[in-house]
Amino acid sequence: MALILTFLGKSASGCSTVAIATAKKLAASGSRVLLVSQDSTPSFDALLNMPAQSFPTEIEPNFELVNLKSSQLLSEIWTEFKDLEAKYLKFPTFKSIYGQELGILPGMDEALALNALRKYQEGGTYDVIIYDGNNTFHTLRMFGIPGILNWYLERFRQIFTESDLGKTLVPLIQPLISTILNTSWTLDDLDKVSSDNILQEGNVALKDSNRVAAYLITTEDKAAIATAKYFWGGAYQVGLSVKGVIINQSSELSVGKYFDFGQLESFSLPKKVGNNWKPLIEALPDFLDKSSTPLSINIDTATSQIKIFLPGFEKKQVKLTQSVSELTIEAGDQRRKIYLPNSLTGKVVKSAKFRNNYLVVSL
Amino acid sequence: MALILTFLGKSASGCSTVAIATAKKLAASGSRVLLVSQDSTPSFDALLNMPAQSFPTEIEPNFELVNLKSSQLLSEIWTEFKDLEAKYLKFPTFKSIYGQELGILPGMDEALALNALRKYQEGGTYDVIIYDGNNTFHTLRMFGIPGILNWYLERFRQIFTESDLGKTLVPLIQPLISTILNTSWTLDDLDKVSSDNILQEGNVALKDSNRVAAYLITTEDKAAIATAKYFWGGAYQVGLSVKGVIINQSSELSVGKYFDFGQLESFSLPKKVGNNWKPLIEALPDFLDKSSTPLSINIDTATSQIKIFLPGFEKKQVKLTQSVSELTIEAGDQRRKIYLPNSLTGKVVKSAKFRNNYLVVSL
Repeated sequence: MALILTFLGKSASGCSTVAIATAKKLAASGSRVLLVSQDSTPSFDALLNMPAQSFPTEIEPNFELVNLKSSQLLSEIWTEFKDLEAKYLKFPTFKSIYGQELGILPGMDEALALNALRKYQEGGTYDVIIYDGNNTFHTLRMFGIPGILNWYLERFRQIFTESDLGKTLVPLIQPLISTILNTSWTLDDLDKVSSDNILQEGNVALKDSNRVAAYLITTEDKAAIATAKYFWGGAYQVGLSVKGVIINQSSELSVGKYFDFGQLESFSLPKKVGNNWKPLIEALPDFLDKSSTPLSINIDTATSQIKIFLPGFEKKQVKLTQSVSELTIEAGDQRRKIYLPNSLTGKVVKSAKFRNNYLVVSL
Repeated sequence: MALILTFLGKSASGCSTVAIATAKKLAASGSRVLLVSQDSTPSFDALLNMPAQSFPTEIEPNFELVNLKSSQLLSEIWTEFKDLEAKYLKFPTFKSIYGQELGILPGMDEALALNALRKYQEGGTYDVIIYDGNNTFHTLRMFGIPGILNWYLERFRQIFTESDLGKTLVPLIQPLISTILNTSWTLDDLDKVSSDNILQEGNVALKDSNRVAAYLITTEDKAAIATAKYFWGGAYQVGLSVKGVIINQSSELSVGKYFDFGQLESFSLPKKVGNNWKPLIEALPDFLDKSSTPLSINIDTATSQIKIFLPGFEKKQVKLTQSVSELTIEAGDQRRKIYLPNSLTGKVVKSAKFRNNYLVVSL
């Protein structure tokens, strides 16, 4: 299955430039690469000196490029949805609405992009898929979808099935939802829904840095460094592993000077001169190495301690709330769930301390 | 009612810097100003040399600043929603779910920000509200919500009320929706829903440049100019009027040289030196002038011609589709609806040409 790579950094730190250099490097060494950009403005085209198409197009041997267009993806997915509906519902409701007329609401870009990535990954045509969103904050929101949506489904499922609304609705839409979530369920065993579906699968993939991995991008600018650090923690908040930090447009003086990214491996990239990609390509990390990243969560039931890897934040930026069976870690305007094992369920948080980029919670 | 201002441009062109200078200028001349930023990264804080709070905080006389935090806004709105539900439904469904545990999915940031802007506007505390999003593409998605959501409600309403699902569901959720949309309706007169609600109100406000106005921001960089032009058309695609273009960090040589923004008034801003905002403030436009912007749509029923203001795009970037009573203009990865008057309903598009930034459609 294809490795998905993405780059996180302050805007204009060079994420797109690094993404292109990465695609060139991997393609040259024999990997089949798809670079997925999501930027409908002319900015991205200017970097490659050519307009990016909305379907995969070869631009170098082994290197294909696609620029996701939400209006087109939405039309396509709507057609698929209508086909499913017609197949499973006796009286399909939406057959008279056409994909070409649907407008785009906030959030659709990210949901459609994640779905497109999943399809490219399953298609088996590529070894590496590089995702270059138009804004890191929204890229993290996108990678957060599987975990958060799964939580919503879980949490609202219980409530929903016990309600009047749920009892009325379930028989009507059950066949459709079964198909979309790729699992079968009835009102009585809704528990199964979340155990074996696309979202869970997405969640598991995110946590494996050999399947989905992120690199931080920064320049020597102080705000860019602070922002990259912030995204380091932000990535872990949505379950995405960070494998290294790339200092773009670096001068020799700066190496190891301005920043403190702890154990994270760092790579200095020279400034690109004209159309010469070679020096950048040579300085880039080996993206295919199988080194591991710090364990995101470590639960020690014997000592009732939970260690949560949460780099880039200070204690005052983190808020911890607890319900019977889960902890919610609020940081970077993201909420991450830690599900407590049975032996810790119901125990109350006694203390929470920061130690070497870990939040250590004692129950 | 407060004027809402926003700035559109390629990332790192200085939208946030101009937003701050604008707030300082207007506050100094006596307007009560709220600057609403939506950037949880450390980037924005660095510009003002202070951390922005998630509640309005005075930082100069007449100048308050708030940095929207989605997790907090979501918790607040969930509490409001539960109160409404408890009031109108005999068996409220969601009372056991707490706002503090809800995760943030893509799209929520924009929906929550638009709702926050509406509340600040209605509150009457401010004369001018400046919105500084973290990415122009997503800012446009946000301003597109009223028009597009309204279209979805309209279009799906017909389908929905005729379906099994609709007939089952409406009696259960009717009181709640009535309250949210601030109108009353029954299954039989659902037509009324969209005529008098918040979304329509939002739509009307957007079209009045004395209530909501945007300015383009660019530097002398070619990609930044091309991107600003693209957002010029993108703004009109979501119903937002553009009143001028600001050339940030401009050198004297460049004035009027690099760009072609047609009739749009342009303003050259010098580069900010240290913490000296004065030269920027002096070069900014008079944001309170009541000059009008080009009419977005002009329908001439006598000649069966529709003129649509669509700057910044070429013909090949625009796609036109037609249904019986509406045209869909696809450009900038946005779909905009033109509703045909009765006298033109059913007529087929004969030709579509670009003339002076207008798309001229003959029926």
